[in-house]
Amino acid sequence: MTQVDVRQRILSDNATAAAALRSRFAATHTLVLNLISSPGSGKTALLEATVRALSGRLRLGAIEGDIATERDAERLRALGIPAHQILTGGSCHLDARQVSGALETHDLGPLDVLFIENVGNLVCPTSYDLGEDFKVALLSVTEGEDKPFKYPSIFAKAAVTVVTKADLMPYVSFKLDDASGQIAALRPGGTMLVTSAVTGQGIAEWCGLIEERLAAKRGAAS
Amino acid sequence: MTQVDVRQRILSDNATAAAALRSRFAATHTLVLNLISSPGSGKTALLEATVRALSGRLRLGAIEGDIATERDAERLRALGIPAHQILTGGSCHLDARQVSGALETHDLGPLDVLFIENVGNLVCPTSYDLGEDFKVALLSVTEGEDKPFKYPSIFAKAAVTVVTKADLMPYVSFKLDDASGQIAALRPGGTMLVTSAVTGQGIAEWCGLIEERLAAKRGAAS
Repeated sequence: MTQVDVRQRILSDNATAAAALRSRFAATHTLVLNLISSPGSGKTALLEATVRALSGRLRLGAIEGDIATERDAERLRALGIPAHQILTGGSCHLDARQVSGALETHDLGPLDVLFIENVGNLVCPTSYDLGEDFKVALLSVTEGEDKPFKYPSIFAKAAVTVVTKADLMPYVSFKLDDASGQIAALRPGGTMLVTSAVTGQGIAEWCGLIEERLAAKRGAAS
Repeated sequence: MTQVDVRQRILSDNATAAAALRSRFAATHTLVLNLISSPGSGKTALLEATVRALSGRLRLGAIEGDIATERDAERLRALGIPAHQILTGGSCHLDARQVSGALETHDLGPLDVLFIENVGNLVCPTSYDLGEDFKVALLSVTEGEDKPFKYPSIFAKAAVTVVTKADLMPYVSFKLDDASGQIAALRPGGTMLVTSAVTGQGIAEWCGLIEERLAAKRGAAS
């Protein structure tokens, strides 16, 4: 079996596990988002702001992926939502079987929205379907506007791109129009939001998007 | 052949190619640095500042790794040094055979220092020896001080960690002492430098380190 064969088998096994997850989430009418970005782009900070805004109205939960440390799950549990940390050891991404396993062993209870925060990595998580409704790519303004064309696969696959840390825009040379043009070229019809977890910019719009997608999923199911 | 067998064979083949590169660099007395960080941590900006400071005194060259775009090599060529871009397609890291291949097909001329800027990724490049003298991990202050313990392998393997974007320290909550403690725990005896390519902070110290390591390599060879 060659390297290519092994990779194809891994992705094929993952697709099977992801399909089972998707059926499970359809049965419970749970909207599932798979958040992907570089390390330190602000995935957990965005989720903290989201929990503060939505947890009174919706039942939220999170699965956190990291190589090491329980830190991200602890940050979300501190805000009162169920959050389970998957430690991948050395692995650079979450796969569908890890998510299934986590849900079997750690009951997060009935959820309206499940956030899966992937390992910080703009490359490897892109190929692994986790049974999500859609992928969300995050891009912080401090990373530079050249990243979509340098990492095209994730920005093509993500239905939503969230630009983060907009409060730092005055201190860095981030060309928003340039980033926006690249994202639109890679994902025609996709959505881009500009946010700051510090100032709250764009958080209402982001939460509105989540509520709309949840309503659409439930409408489609009924 | 299982997934584990395939991975072991890949790493074993890589080690063979890396040993050949190391012999080649020893013969030419070229100091080689393998720079690894998240996307957007400022690897190319650090190299630009390094080229401005050192290119009058040393013969510098660069190999740039990216999924897509020639942008980073173009930025360095614009400063007058030879730079070759390796496009990895979908691959999340450089391997030693790619570096060998690049040096065969694109002669960078005689070099005192070769910088290999890896694909932006804190995980996958860690396992691939490229024949370098040492690995350099970059951590920008905007990423947060929790990253060393979240991505321990690279901070353990890197002889030098360069904290970047120190000019943004006033605008973010980055605990330098905390980061420094994690890095020292993961790599006892390693070196940590705090830099800004914008203000020039730490660049002289960084360039001094490169000149010292080059002198030490040449001293050891003579």
